[in-house]
Amino acid sequence: MTGEEIRSTLKKYNLQSWSKQKNLNPISVEKAEGIYFWDYDGNRYTDMSSQLVNMNLGFGNKAIGDAIKAQVDQYCFIGPSYGAESRAKLAKKIIELMPDNMGKVFFTNAGADANENAVKMARMFTGRNKVFSRYRSYHGSSFGAGNLTGEPRRFPLEPGVPGFIKFFDPYIYREPIDFKSEEDATKYYLAKLEEQLQYEGAGSVAAIFLETVTGSNGVIIPPKGYLPGVRALCDKYGIMMVCDEVMTGWCRTGKMFGFMNFDVKPDIVTFAKGVTCGYIPLGGVAVSKAIAEYFDDNLLSCGLTYSGHPLACAAGVACVNYFEEADILGNVNKVGKVLGEKLEEMKAKHPSVGDVRYIGLFSAVELVKSKATKEPLVPYGKDPEGLMGKIIGLLAERKFMTYTHENVVLVAPPLIITEEQLTQELKKLDDVLSIVDEKFLG
Amino acid sequence: MTGEEIRSTLKKYNLQSWSKQKNLNPISVEKAEGIYFWDYDGNRYTDMSSQLVNMNLGFGNKAIGDAIKAQVDQYCFIGPSYGAESRAKLAKKIIELMPDNMGKVFFTNAGADANENAVKMARMFTGRNKVFSRYRSYHGSSFGAGNLTGEPRRFPLEPGVPGFIKFFDPYIYREPIDFKSEEDATKYYLAKLEEQLQYEGAGSVAAIFLETVTGSNGVIIPPKGYLPGVRALCDKYGIMMVCDEVMTGWCRTGKMFGFMNFDVKPDIVTFAKGVTCGYIPLGGVAVSKAIAEYFDDNLLSCGLTYSGHPLACAAGVACVNYFEEADILGNVNKVGKVLGEKLEEMKAKHPSVGDVRYIGLFSAVELVKSKATKEPLVPYGKDPEGLMGKIIGLLAERKFMTYTHENVVLVAPPLIITEEQLTQELKKLDDVLSIVDEKFLG
Repeated sequence: MTGEEIRSTLKKYNLQSWSKQKNLNPISVEKAEGIYFWDYDGNRYTDMSSQLVNMNLGFGNKAIGDAIKAQVDQYCFIGPSYGAESRAKLAKKIIELMPDNMGKVFFTNAGADANENAVKMARMFTGRNKVFSRYRSYHGSSFGAGNLTGEPRRFPLEPGVPGFIKFFDPYIYREPIDFKSEEDATKYYLAKLEEQLQYEGAGSVAAIFLETVTGSNGVIIPPKGYLPGVRALCDKYGIMMVCDEVMTGWCRTGKMFGFMNFDVKPDIVTFAKGVTCGYIPLGGVAVSKAIAEYFDDNLLSCGLTYSGHPLACAAGVACVNYFEEADILGNVNKVGKVLGEKLEEMKAKHPSVGDVRYIGLFSAVELVKSKATKEPLVPYGKDPEGLMGKIIGLLAERKFMTYTHENVVLVAPPLIITEEQLTQELKKLDDVLSIVDEKFLG
Repeated sequence: MTGEEIRSTLKKYNLQSWSKQKNLNPISVEKAEGIYFWDYDGNRYTDMSSQLVNMNLGFGNKAIGDAIKAQVDQYCFIGPSYGAESRAKLAKKIIELMPDNMGKVFFTNAGADANENAVKMARMFTGRNKVFSRYRSYHGSSFGAGNLTGEPRRFPLEPGVPGFIKFFDPYIYREPIDFKSEEDATKYYLAKLEEQLQYEGAGSVAAIFLETVTGSNGVIIPPKGYLPGVRALCDKYGIMMVCDEVMTGWCRTGKMFGFMNFDVKPDIVTFAKGVTCGYIPLGGVAVSKAIAEYFDDNLLSCGLTYSGHPLACAAGVACVNYFEEADILGNVNKVGKVLGEKLEEMKAKHPSVGDVRYIGLFSAVELVKSKATKEPLVPYGKDPEGLMGKIIGLLAERKFMTYTHENVVLVAPPLIITEEQLTQELKKLDDVLSIVDEKFLG
């Protein structure tokens, strides 16, 4: 098919996520390699969001591709109750990469169903019903994961599942209080969380779900001491601490898992995306030894056809091994340092940049009408003048491909990006921000 | 790894679906071809359930394998907002195979999230909240799909999602009423359904979900006129008719989709399993043209990272084309006829066989203590003497691999099985049923 045939066929027969379908005009992609992909007219684009923050190793990774082909030659699938080598290897590898309190993995197809099953396991293990999660979080859009989600993508799922409670995240930049210090902020957030736990009945709370670093809602990084504080509250009240590492896992933040930046050991970790870099859908739930042992004698009432899919696990084994063999963490920390510096320069330079947040190669640029008032460039939940779409358009003209959420531009390139490539790409962002300064702040 | 290493590694690090973990002893599978697979000691097993009723084409299908390898060489993944050839081809192909009222496909990872998204779309399109589904149905185990599910796998998800209503399915064999005819039964079930719709407020019902043929709860086939009657009720009250074709789709019942046996056109069709035969996880929701057009100007508030995954869609294109090229429907109808005849012979012969139900290569054997009383071989929800496990064991000793649900043994081999292979395998089932007759009826 030609690029145009692909586009018109999709418009006729395919429904695209999170969109009104009428005016869609997808770019047809012919080939892809490393951090780049090409349309059918030979135009080269740079993937500055790792697609949906899943392609941590970029396109065309040969180790993963070869592992998929080899597994195809053995078999693509065998049911979850049989023994498949790739499933065994990946489960072992993941637990070895986790803190020493972790015991076993339950595999799913992606992040949403990882979170769905984490809720179920936390409830079964604790015998409690309520689950806490945060406003501004995204945990998926199926009914369980979507009811954990703390932003408008939850609304189509309402009236919601009973027992799902929301609390506020530490979004210090927009907090109506001015904190004296990061420590003060942490103290405030933990006190409010404990107060809410008490008023909900801490003894009826099964789990607290957190994106370790809030992802699609703007790379909101927890202040110092926050996660250890949540850990302490969980210990105090017998609550499972669940870190959603769907975006932050697999080297994205400069550690193998995001929580490793903050000196905590969760009870449950959900993961997806980077475990295979999306080459084949795969997700999972890692649980503590205590939880794993509970299910020795108690029915694990969770299941799906493709739990531990052998072909997906083969991709996972190759992918996770590659992170180590190619010292991806080394690159993330080296290039991530440059990313932080450049973003700080842009913040200093551009009146439209209210805040920049970054950890490893995971970052966001928050746009404002005014640095002084912090008024967002577009009001929450709307964009009447289509400004964010125009910004994405200006970036796309320069072949800098990413996405936005509300007034935030995400920058999260594949973790194999070089310093030189990053510098080249950020120049484009810098140019676009100058246009925003000049034309959009009016 | 050796078979034993795989087994012990899985027991140490992996959580297996729907199980107490302590006494698991998975068979490690080394290779697989057609309807057979082999353990690491060279023992050959016959797959008489198509694994989880997903491997419609069996193991090692070269067309699908080659398509996966070719797609790996182009790229494994590009985000849902870009144009990928395999995604376009598969969406088009699926709509072409559907009735002429169908418009577009929304791709998911599997059956559960297909049903999750079907609920959301039906609600958005109708502006109504309630969804009807049936006792004894299985639609998945995530919160939305699991709340549709009408059997104990729903219980860990309770208290349930508001607005999910259950009605009874036409399980004529166990109905406490004796019907004069199939037509009489249909009249009864439709009248009860309409009565319940009225008492729930038919105008607030968005959708009625049905497994076209109830699958894992025992291959319960709707009586003549039932599905057209449900269709008429949906038309009368403006309700979306949703056929869950996760098990019944893709030639399983002797038609491309199960509903084609019953002369109805659904508004929404959910599918998974056979679309790729599980070679790579893939599912989806096909919607009518009316629904598709609604989302031209209204936000489709559904999305997932892997919607229309290019590698999965490449497997899907090859798989769906293969059904036609290899005339799989021809084989299902030919060999399915033999399956029906042999099952009727077993029912006539064995006191333990209360009922046999079959359509295409989808069938179940319902076991009883007594044909006269119809008392199930094991009471609902329990099996104190482990009888069903023993039966699975007796079949496994003969390398006839399938699974049971309550007092029902599933027989649903890959659709490539020959008449000779089927006859050979059913002899094993016949032998085991003789043991059941002799030893288990007490």
